[in-house]
Amino acid sequence: MDIKHYMQTLGRQARAASRRLARASTAEKNAALEAIASAILRDKEALLAANARDLEAARAAGLEPALLDRLTLSPKGVDSMAEGVRQIAQLPDPIGEMSDIKFRPSGIQVGKMRVPLGVIGIIYEARPNVTADAAALCLKSGNAAILRGGSEAIHANRALADLVQEGLRVAGLPPEAVQVVETTDRAAVGELITLREYVDVIVPRGGKGLIARLLAEARVPMIQHLDGNCHVYLESQADPEKALKIVENAKTQRYGTCNTAESLLVDRAVAATLLPPIAQMLSEKGVEIRGCAETQAIVANARPATEDDYYAEYLAPVISVKVVSGIDEAIAHINQYSSHHTEAIVTENHTLAMRFLREVDSSSVMINASTRFADGFEYGLGAEIGISTDKIHARGPVGLEGLTSQKWVVFGNGHVRA
Amino acid sequence: MDIKHYMQTLGRQARAASRRLARASTAEKNAALEAIASAILRDKEALLAANARDLEAARAAGLEPALLDRLTLSPKGVDSMAEGVRQIAQLPDPIGEMSDIKFRPSGIQVGKMRVPLGVIGIIYEARPNVTADAAALCLKSGNAAILRGGSEAIHANRALADLVQEGLRVAGLPPEAVQVVETTDRAAVGELITLREYVDVIVPRGGKGLIARLLAEARVPMIQHLDGNCHVYLESQADPEKALKIVENAKTQRYGTCNTAESLLVDRAVAATLLPPIAQMLSEKGVEIRGCAETQAIVANARPATEDDYYAEYLAPVISVKVVSGIDEAIAHINQYSSHHTEAIVTENHTLAMRFLREVDSSSVMINASTRFADGFEYGLGAEIGISTDKIHARGPVGLEGLTSQKWVVFGNGHVRA
Repeated sequence: MDIKHYMQTLGRQARAASRRLARASTAEKNAALEAIASAILRDKEALLAANARDLEAARAAGLEPALLDRLTLSPKGVDSMAEGVRQIAQLPDPIGEMSDIKFRPSGIQVGKMRVPLGVIGIIYEARPNVTADAAALCLKSGNAAILRGGSEAIHANRALADLVQEGLRVAGLPPEAVQVVETTDRAAVGELITLREYVDVIVPRGGKGLIARLLAEARVPMIQHLDGNCHVYLESQADPEKALKIVENAKTQRYGTCNTAESLLVDRAVAATLLPPIAQMLSEKGVEIRGCAETQAIVANARPATEDDYYAEYLAPVISVKVVSGIDEAIAHINQYSSHHTEAIVTENHTLAMRFLREVDSSSVMINASTRFADGFEYGLGAEIGISTDKIHARGPVGLEGLTSQKWVVFGNGHVRA
Repeated sequence: MDIKHYMQTLGRQARAASRRLARASTAEKNAALEAIASAILRDKEALLAANARDLEAARAAGLEPALLDRLTLSPKGVDSMAEGVRQIAQLPDPIGEMSDIKFRPSGIQVGKMRVPLGVIGIIYEARPNVTADAAALCLKSGNAAILRGGSEAIHANRALADLVQEGLRVAGLPPEAVQVVETTDRAAVGELITLREYVDVIVPRGGKGLIARLLAEARVPMIQHLDGNCHVYLESQADPEKALKIVENAKTQRYGTCNTAESLLVDRAVAATLLPPIAQMLSEKGVEIRGCAETQAIVANARPATEDDYYAEYLAPVISVKVVSGIDEAIAHINQYSSHHTEAIVTENHTLAMRFLREVDSSSVMINASTRFADGFEYGLGAEIGISTDKIHARGPVGLEGLTSQKWVVFGNGHVRA
């Protein structure tokens, strides 16, 4: 089939379905989500079988172990997929919320109403659990979705698409509200990201390579997620105990997450006292330290850090360390080297803490807390479709509200403009 | 000079200045704005002389009268330019506002802080008053600005840029916070809209041709403003007096504005009673009516409307009219033909009014009020940099808040993630 024509058809169908979904009641949307969750549990064996076919092909193609791991659906994984869909059903419906309704001197009343974005294209790796999750988030927020998962997961994704569309039908909603791209042809992505007429926003969930390609080619706005080069800055009045605890948690709780700290800044005044216990803790956990000359003078086993180290998102047991002269250098360093994801200051000084909070240009800025908190669930969003490092539209963890827009509403009684 | 290099330099300077501006106090920003307003009044004669040079060149080049009109600065125009800058100084500072700060079960407190976008590129026609206005809005919202006005206004824009930079210096802020592109080479626009590293958002203020070009070439996100094909729908329970008043105001108060009604939908049940007095009013004002067959049967002097008429933004004394079978057809017609700017329903029926409010997919939706109210000042924003017909980021009239973003802030006391 002609890919251009195929994607145009998906787009047109999604746009039509989005009109119906935008006016769907909360009860209708929740009924669809409950039906999807039940269908996933009912067809657990079939889903696992579809996944087994994907895994077999992936192994034959020599897919890397880490990717095979993400591709794998366990029986427990299917259960939590269904549970995730149910949890989204239980979240408050963001759509239709009216706010800031105020009378104006002209006599009209003006405010805002929260509405869906319309059609959302989601491009992600070969992870079948994202299919259920993304479908549920789009549905709850009243958006139609076009899902393009990694081609290695095509059998599981097709099986899931059938269950999602069954759930939509059960609730009296159009099945085209959630469509999975059924071809593994990579040209489909190129079409999806340029379908301005039918797609309102693209949410990419994947590695840097994917995002770089989309950035270069997309004609549709994106809620992008770049890397997380997160910093912890130990200010001169940092409480040593809090400093140790926060660095330990931020760096070592999990190495592969985007909110993991990759770089540590320490005030010169306290470097000699704060760094040794922290270096010992890191070494005991097998974390390699790459530091500036001053760090190396204090920490015997520190290797030299290059300029590239300060830009790096290691996603591994490695941390860069730099001794700085004070908060000005710390903020300047972060605003220069950070990926603008999440940064934390550890200090007991209120004035400096508030300066850091205000002047650091990242999507999350924290005082005396671990960068690992940067997460939709920890922030109380109830769900998360990704973490945006963009400033436009949604910034930081993106939940249901990030998939909506606000229009202006005006209440009059025959009012005209003078 | 090499344009690419020149624009890169402007971008780098703007980025550096934006860091300082982001942490500028309200008093500093207001002092700069007051100094700019005073300098504009002080140098009124010089500004008028610079404008006279622009006008002379434009006349010699055979510029159209409408464009010459926009290019012209009158002594009164200079006064209101300064007054506009002062009004922006008096608006509340949106930056630093914290909201929704809530404790989470983990013990951290999470909320949002309003921050500038960073660097804003503004591309506009040869209208020197936009230079002062755009500079003031960006400055107040803590953003650095790169202004690219139509080349016909280059002398006035350069003179204004000097005054703006003088005001910034007086307040101790970096003059590079507002830079006017000093070349008339059109390649500068191409560079500006692809400077992803240094420019956070582009705000185009201009005609459809400009926007279409930017849409095709921009690599920087845009707050775009497309055309305004606004509708008034007279529902079957419309109050005839309100209907007449609202159509008169929406269509005839001003013909050239984007919130002017260009299309009228009338419920079949009331077409024969509502249309004749409205048609008479329109004809008396010299407005040409282009209608469907049913309209033509009721309104003797109506000309036939083509499909193109229903898509048209006339910006002229012409209106398209269509008789519809009810609210379903009205909403479907609007969502199909509208430019998603502003639409109004006239009805006394609450249920239908609320359906219209919810289901019409436009940036402003109104009940019993004239579309002419869609305006930043009428909505209470205090200022307006444009009206967005996008759904991403800012929708409808964009004031200071539309030039900001929100980052997450977290308050802890040594908290780590479990």
